[in-house]
Amino acid sequence: MDAYDPIEPDNPRSYGVFMALVVISQILGIICVILTGAWLGAYWGGFSWTDSRVIFNYHPLFMVLGLVFLYGDAILVYRVFRNYHKLPIKVLHAVLHILAFLFAVVAVKAVFEFHDSRRIPNLYSLHSWIGLVALVLFGVQWVSGLITFLVPQMPQSLRGAYLPVHVSFGSGLFVFIIGVCISGITEKNIFSQAYPSLETREVLGNALGVCLVCFGAVIYYLVTHPAYRRVELVPPERRALNQQ
Amino acid sequence: MDAYDPIEPDNPRSYGVFMALVVISQILGIICVILTGAWLGAYWGGFSWTDSRVIFNYHPLFMVLGLVFLYGDAILVYRVFRNYHKLPIKVLHAVLHILAFLFAVVAVKAVFEFHDSRRIPNLYSLHSWIGLVALVLFGVQWVSGLITFLVPQMPQSLRGAYLPVHVSFGSGLFVFIIGVCISGITEKNIFSQAYPSLETREVLGNALGVCLVCFGAVIYYLVTHPAYRRVELVPPERRALNQQ
Repeated sequence: MDAYDPIEPDNPRSYGVFMALVVISQILGIICVILTGAWLGAYWGGFSWTDSRVIFNYHPLFMVLGLVFLYGDAILVYRVFRNYHKLPIKVLHAVLHILAFLFAVVAVKAVFEFHDSRRIPNLYSLHSWIGLVALVLFGVQWVSGLITFLVPQMPQSLRGAYLPVHVSFGSGLFVFIIGVCISGITEKNIFSQAYPSLETREVLGNALGVCLVCFGAVIYYLVTHPAYRRVELVPPERRALNQQ
Repeated sequence: MDAYDPIEPDNPRSYGVFMALVVISQILGIICVILTGAWLGAYWGGFSWTDSRVIFNYHPLFMVLGLVFLYGDAILVYRVFRNYHKLPIKVLHAVLHILAFLFAVVAVKAVFEFHDSRRIPNLYSLHSWIGLVALVLFGVQWVSGLITFLVPQMPQSLRGAYLPVHVSFGSGLFVFIIGVCISGITEKNIFSQAYPSLETREVLGNALGVCLVCFGAVIYYLVTHPAYRRVELVPPERRALNQQ
């Protein structure tokens, strides 16, 4: 929100902290995925596409894997590989995002199949409303990014104007999706008969929520802190040639 | 996440869009507060500190008023008054934040009193866990900001190093708090007997969630977009004198 003295990107201390945070983020992300699997696998009946009682369980698992872990890593690639050439990183960024989107689509399919087979109405909860909005926005953002940054004919001026919007929107949507997950875990926990007393299943759900928030916080910090911004390898006048 | 050509802050078109978005954000913020009041006032039994059945209703109202509306406006002041002197804006920023915090404390008191009077355990839900974390982080951020940016003896170098952390953390926490609200509305809606069928009360709850997300999105966009960044009035070498 203000002018500041940027920390030198080549500063070894800054780089050490950065790498430590990247490692922490990856550990947190893997813990989130494993915790989701363990929570649903051991305490909510396991996973099966043929057993209508547990089809639902694929929903949180694929959402955490796709829209949290892969999305988080997709927005981190520009910072982790900030000294490399841009085009392969752009492609990696796009591929991780489309994988995240595909996992999310399967996750949505799981919840619709579960509801239909159990005659539960679809799209009644706030979680479903804002979750669907988030998924649509994610899709729009992906297509806009693909057209703007990977179609070689796009003028640099347009890319320059859209980039801050893309970055601001993308990192905001990421944090928002963590919030959508929190509302999903809240629903699942309340559907538990034990509530409001806390048993292992509910504590695990809450712990998963806390881990998701921690993962989101570390990723958000890494992608928004100006000290970890990408270093341009080529001067602006040669950038158009290099990026195609 | 990348270098870009910043949009000229004096660009009249950019300024028009900015002001339109500020007006939209304020309308959305007021709608959020009114909708919260109407939802709880007309559909969840109204407001009273003496009736134990409805003490709870102060909780969402004061949270939306404080940690959403006032917090949102507090982080917006640097951008709205970006051409003014910094010290009065700093003070306004701090005052709006402490008001937000006080509303939040009363809101927390309301939910504890409600639980105690109804013999419901405290702090069992994920909403309560992450909500409390958010409130503590908010308090830490406020005190750190006060010491760093309003104590005249603080060196400019320290302020410069802490500022991006303060800004990144503060805007991330704001979006996170919107997520905490979503989980709270999710809880309240599920406690409704009508669920999963949607009646006016549940639709209002969901609509409030959507409005909160829209308010959060507009504020987040305004405070993170580099085109709306504050314009410095004094050169860096004179800044220390001017800010004290």
